[in-house]
Amino acid sequence: MAKPSSKRIIDIDIRDIKGPEFLKELNYRSLDLLSEKIRREIIDKTSKYGGHLSSNLGVVEITIALHRMFNFKHDKLIFDVGHQSYTHKILTGRSLEYLRNRNGVSGFQKICESYYDCFEAGHSSTSLSAAQGFALNRDARGEKYDVVAVIGDGSIVNGLAFEALNNISHNNNKVIIILNDNEMSISRPTGGMGKFFAKISTASGYTNFKISYRRFMFKTRMGHALYNFTSRIKNAIKQKLVPTTYFDDMGFQYIGCIDGHNIKALEKAIARAKRTPKSVVLHVATVKGKGYRYAENDTTGYWHGVTPFEIESGKPKNLHPEELSWSHLFSDLLTALMAERNDLVIISPATVKGSGLEDLFSTYPKRTFDVGIAEGHALTLASGLAVAGTHPIVSIYSTFMQRAFDQIIHDIARMNLNITFLVDRSGLVGLDGETHQGIYDESFLLSTPNTVVTMPSSDKEAKYLLNESLKQHGPFFIRYPRDLLKKNHLIQEENHQFGKWIMERVANSKRVAVIAVGQLLRSLKELIIEADLDVTLVNALFLKPHDQEMLSSLSEYETIVIYDAYATEFGFASYLKTKLCEMSYKGQIKSFAIPDVFVTQAKISEQLEELGLLPKQVFEEIKKLL
Amino acid sequence: MAKPSSKRIIDIDIRDIKGPEFLKELNYRSLDLLSEKIRREIIDKTSKYGGHLSSNLGVVEITIALHRMFNFKHDKLIFDVGHQSYTHKILTGRSLEYLRNRNGVSGFQKICESYYDCFEAGHSSTSLSAAQGFALNRDARGEKYDVVAVIGDGSIVNGLAFEALNNISHNNNKVIIILNDNEMSISRPTGGMGKFFAKISTASGYTNFKISYRRFMFKTRMGHALYNFTSRIKNAIKQKLVPTTYFDDMGFQYIGCIDGHNIKALEKAIARAKRTPKSVVLHVATVKGKGYRYAENDTTGYWHGVTPFEIESGKPKNLHPEELSWSHLFSDLLTALMAERNDLVIISPATVKGSGLEDLFSTYPKRTFDVGIAEGHALTLASGLAVAGTHPIVSIYSTFMQRAFDQIIHDIARMNLNITFLVDRSGLVGLDGETHQGIYDESFLLSTPNTVVTMPSSDKEAKYLLNESLKQHGPFFIRYPRDLLKKNHLIQEENHQFGKWIMERVANSKRVAVIAVGQLLRSLKELIIEADLDVTLVNALFLKPHDQEMLSSLSEYETIVIYDAYATEFGFASYLKTKLCEMSYKGQIKSFAIPDVFVTQAKISEQLEELGLLPKQVFEEIKKLL
Repeated sequence: MAKPSSKRIIDIDIRDIKGPEFLKELNYRSLDLLSEKIRREIIDKTSKYGGHLSSNLGVVEITIALHRMFNFKHDKLIFDVGHQSYTHKILTGRSLEYLRNRNGVSGFQKICESYYDCFEAGHSSTSLSAAQGFALNRDARGEKYDVVAVIGDGSIVNGLAFEALNNISHNNNKVIIILNDNEMSISRPTGGMGKFFAKISTASGYTNFKISYRRFMFKTRMGHALYNFTSRIKNAIKQKLVPTTYFDDMGFQYIGCIDGHNIKALEKAIARAKRTPKSVVLHVATVKGKGYRYAENDTTGYWHGVTPFEIESGKPKNLHPEELSWSHLFSDLLTALMAERNDLVIISPATVKGSGLEDLFSTYPKRTFDVGIAEGHALTLASGLAVAGTHPIVSIYSTFMQRAFDQIIHDIARMNLNITFLVDRSGLVGLDGETHQGIYDESFLLSTPNTVVTMPSSDKEAKYLLNESLKQHGPFFIRYPRDLLKKNHLIQEENHQFGKWIMERVANSKRVAVIAVGQLLRSLKELIIEADLDVTLVNALFLKPHDQEMLSSLSEYETIVIYDAYATEFGFASYLKTKLCEMSYKGQIKSFAIPDVFVTQAKISEQLEELGLLPKQVFEEIKKLL
Repeated sequence: MAKPSSKRIIDIDIRDIKGPEFLKELNYRSLDLLSEKIRREIIDKTSKYGGHLSSNLGVVEITIALHRMFNFKHDKLIFDVGHQSYTHKILTGRSLEYLRNRNGVSGFQKICESYYDCFEAGHSSTSLSAAQGFALNRDARGEKYDVVAVIGDGSIVNGLAFEALNNISHNNNKVIIILNDNEMSISRPTGGMGKFFAKISTASGYTNFKISYRRFMFKTRMGHALYNFTSRIKNAIKQKLVPTTYFDDMGFQYIGCIDGHNIKALEKAIARAKRTPKSVVLHVATVKGKGYRYAENDTTGYWHGVTPFEIESGKPKNLHPEELSWSHLFSDLLTALMAERNDLVIISPATVKGSGLEDLFSTYPKRTFDVGIAEGHALTLASGLAVAGTHPIVSIYSTFMQRAFDQIIHDIARMNLNITFLVDRSGLVGLDGETHQGIYDESFLLSTPNTVVTMPSSDKEAKYLLNESLKQHGPFFIRYPRDLLKKNHLIQEENHQFGKWIMERVANSKRVAVIAVGQLLRSLKELIIEADLDVTLVNALFLKPHDQEMLSSLSEYETIVIYDAYATEFGFASYLKTKLCEMSYKGQIKSFAIPDVFVTQAKISEQLEELGLLPKQVFEEIKKLL
C-alpha cells in the first residue's frame, strides 16, 4: 500500500496531470478531493459531448487505487468494453475535451492514444481472454508484470467472458480480475449469475463466522465430538461445509466483497491480490453514477450512455421535438403490433433502452425477454421459439449481431425459421467509432441462404416491412440507422408486393439509373428533383431478394449507380454487381458505399463526408455522369 | 417409472422397430439385451459408414430410459449437437443403413426425418437455448409437455450454453437438462468447469449427510443449541452451511450423479426430475465408447468421430498410404516450424485431433492451447497474445470459425494483428452435411478490412503461405479443404511475392482466361492440358489482396471464368466481379461457385457434381466458351 507522504491536503488541478506518478504522493484526504474533481470533470464533459456516465462515475476510486498499486507502464490494465476508462484517461494525462469527437479522445481505450492503453475494445466481455493472452505471453518470456482486467457484472455473464474464466482457471498464468459489481449492466442484470452475486455480497461476514464456528465447536465436548463427526465424513463431502463462491469453485482466489469507493480498503485488497500466486477475482461493490444524483437514482439504465444534457436539471440538450428517431419509430410500430397480436414476443440482448423499448418491456413482461449481454443465446432462443411455432422479433444492434453470425447461419437460416430482426444502428454510428459501425452485417446476411434483407427509407415503408416480416418469409432482417427520421409517405401498403423495388423517379433518357438504399435516398431524391436532373431513381427497399424484373429493365441504361451508404462495398453494392454480371450488363456501373477500411470516430455526417457518401456529394458525382 | 409387464425376456429385432412404444413393455433384462443389440448396430454401421461412435455408445441406456419415461410425440427431446442421436434414431424407427450418406439418415437430428426430432443442430451448445425457446412457447400457450435437452460435459462449458443456463435459471419455464458427463469432449475437457464436475461427482453421498447432520443436531440439547446458533446467523450466511453445486447456486434443481448405464436408476432420477417444478440438471455419468473396447480405452478422442474401420482390429479401412490429407500436411509444416521458432504458439478450440495436431500438442504442452469448445475465446486469446507480441497460429475449422466472426472484426482485424489462421475444412465437407459446410467464411473474410485471405493448391504453396503469414501482414487466413492432397511443386518459394497470383498456363488467344482457387484447379489444369485447350489458367492463391496487375492483364480476354468451388458465389467470385466492374471490364464473366443454398449431406464429389462444380464439369463448360 502506498504511504501518503504528508498529512497536508494537496489540491490537484486535473488539467496539470501528465501521468499517474503523482498519485503515490497523495494522502487519502487528498485522493478524496481528487476523486471529487474527477467526477465533476466526467459530468462536465459528458454533459457537453455525451458518452458513458454512470459506469465512469462508479470506477473513479478503483482506477485511482489501481494506478497507485501498479505501474501500468509495465503492468497491463484492460478495462472491459473500455467505456469506463475516463478516470484512467485523466490520470494518464489525457483531456476529455472533445470526448468521442474527431479531435478528441475515444470513448474507449485506444492503443494509439497512450502507452497506458495496452488493449482496446468497444464490445463487451473481451477483457478476460485478452488478459489471459498477455499473461501467457508474459510467462512464456519469463517477464514479470501483473495483468489486470476490470469487468462489470453485466459483462461477466456473457459467454465469451465465461469461456475465458473457465480457461484462465485451467492455466497457471496469473490474471487479476476486478469484478466491478454495481448491479447494473446496460439494462438490468439478469440470470442465475445475478443470484450468485447477491449471495456472494451478503457473505462477507462469512469468514468471521467460520472462525466463530470452529471456536464454538471446540469449547465443549459435544462440539468436539460433532466436529470430529463432521471430519470423519470430510473425505466424502470434502470442503462442502465451507461455503465457497462460484469463483473459488472454479479455482480462483476470491477476494471480496470490497467497498469500491474506499481507496484504502481497495488498496489493501489489491495488495493481497498481488501477493496471491494464482489468478484472483477481486469483487468490488460500486454505486453506479456515484456523485451525480440523477445517475445514482437511475433504475432503468437511462444514464448509462447519454447524449449531451443540462447538469442541473438532468434534461437532454438538443432535443428535436419535431423529429423521431428510427429506434423510436420501430418502438411505436411494435407497441401497436404487440397490442394487436398476442402471439408475438420480443427478444433483446441488453439493448432495451438503446432501442427505445423500455415501455414495451414493462408493459409486456411475459412477452418480452431481455437476456442480458448474450447475443448468441438471444438468437438461438429465438430459433427454439420459432421452431416451436412462436414468431419472435429480435431487436439487436447491427454491431452486436456480429456476435451471433453463426446462430444466423446454423440455427436460423438453415432451418429457414420465421423470425423478424430489427437491426438497429445499421450503417455508420458516429461517435462510438470503428468498434460500433453497423456496416458489416449486410455482406454477411446477403451471402447467407434463405435470408430476406431490407432497409426502409420512410416510416410507411418501415411499417410495411414489419408487417410483411410476419408473413412467414423465413428470417427477415429490417435494417435501420442511428438517425432521426424524416417523415414521408410512399408505399401503398396493401398493394406493395414482397421483393419489389419502388420507382421513385423516371428519367426521360436512358442515361443514368440510380439504385439507392435507405433514408439517404430521400435526400438524394430532393436534390435530383430540385435540379431536375434527368436521372432515374430506384428505392431498393428489398436488398434480398432483389427485384430482378426492375433490375432487368434498368439494363438499358448507360450507367447504373448504386448508392448504399449503410454498408461496405461488399454488401448490396457487390451483390448487385454480381447480379448485373450474371445479366451480362454492358454499361458502366458506379457504386457509392463504404470502402474496405475501419471508419473512426466522428459525427456521422463527418464520416459520410470523408467517404464521399453525403447525398450532395453523390449528387455531384451523378451530375458528372450526364 | 414404467413397469415391465412380464419377467419374460423379450428379444427385439431392431429392424422391426417402428417407434418407441414397445419399450414400456420390456423388463430390465430385456432392455439390457436391447441395449447390447443397439450397441452392436451402432458399431456395425459406423464401422461401415464412419460417424460418431464413442458418444453414441455412451448414451444407449439414457436414450432408452428417456423414451420410456417421456412421450416424445408431445414432449421435446433435443440432443446437443445431435451427433449422439443414433439410439434415438433406431428407437424411432429409423435405419442406420447409409448413415450420413445421400440416401441415409443424417448424423444429427433432423426435423424432416422424424416427428421425434423437434430441433436440429450440428454445432455444439445450442440445445439449452433452443430448449428454453420451447419451454417459453409452451408456457405462453398454456400447453403441457416436458422439454428435455441432453448435453455433454464438453458442450456445456461453451459460452452459448452458459448464457442459456444463466437465462433459464432466471425464468420459470421448466427445462430438464441431462448433463451427460463422460469426461470427454471432442478433445479432453478443459477448464474450471472440469473441477466442478469432479467435485460434484464425489458429492453424491452429500444429501444423506445433510439428513444425518440434522438428525444428529436435534438428538442432543447441545446440538439443538448449536443448530439454533447456526440458524441465528442464517440470514447472514444463508444456506452456506449447505453444500451446493454450481447448478444449485444458479437456481436449478440438481440431481446426481447417476450411473448412466443403469436404466432403473436413470428412470428413478428422471421421475424425480419430472416431478420437480423448476428447471432441473440431471447429472449422469457415462462411459465413453461403452461396449467397444478400443473406444472405451481411448484417451485421445480418436474414437469420437471415425472413418470406416475394421471392427475386430479397430483399424481404419480405406487407408490411402500414398496420400496425405491437407490437415496432416499442415500438421507436418507446423511440426517443422515449431521446432525452428520457439516464439510461436498454437491455439485450437477442441479440434486438435480433427486437425491432426495431437503429436504437436503433446510435444509442446506449453506452446499449444486447446481451449475447449470456445471459439470466441480462442480468437480473443489470440488477440491478447498478438497485442502482447506473440504470433499465434489458430487452427480452426471454417464452420466453427463462424462462431468467432465478431472476434475477427472487433478483436483482430480492427487492430490489424499478426495472427495466422489455419482454416481447416474450408469448402464442402461431405457427410456432415449443411451444418458443417466451410463455405461461408470467405465472403465474410473478404469483406472485413485488413484481412489477407489465401488458399493454396499444392503442398509447396501451403508451405510458402504459412511462412509468409508470419511476416506481419496482419490477420492472415490460409484456407484448406477436407480432402487428400495431390502433391505437386509449383511455387519458387524464395521468389514468390506477397499478393501475386501464379500464371499456370498461357493461351495463344485472348478468348478465355480462367481464374481458379485451391486444389481443384490442379485437376482442371490436367484436363485443359490433356485436351490442349486454348485457355489461360491463373492460380489465385491470394484471394485478398488480389493481384490487380495480373487481373488488369486479363481484361483483354473475351471471357473471364472464375472457378472457386470452396465457397459461395458471394465469396471470391463476387469479390472479383466487383473488381472487374471497377475496372469497367466489358467482356463476359462466368463463375463457378457454390450457389445461395444450403448443401445437404453426400460425399464431397457428389455434392460438387450436383452443383456442377467438378473439374470435368467446369472443363466442359469452358469448352463451350471457345
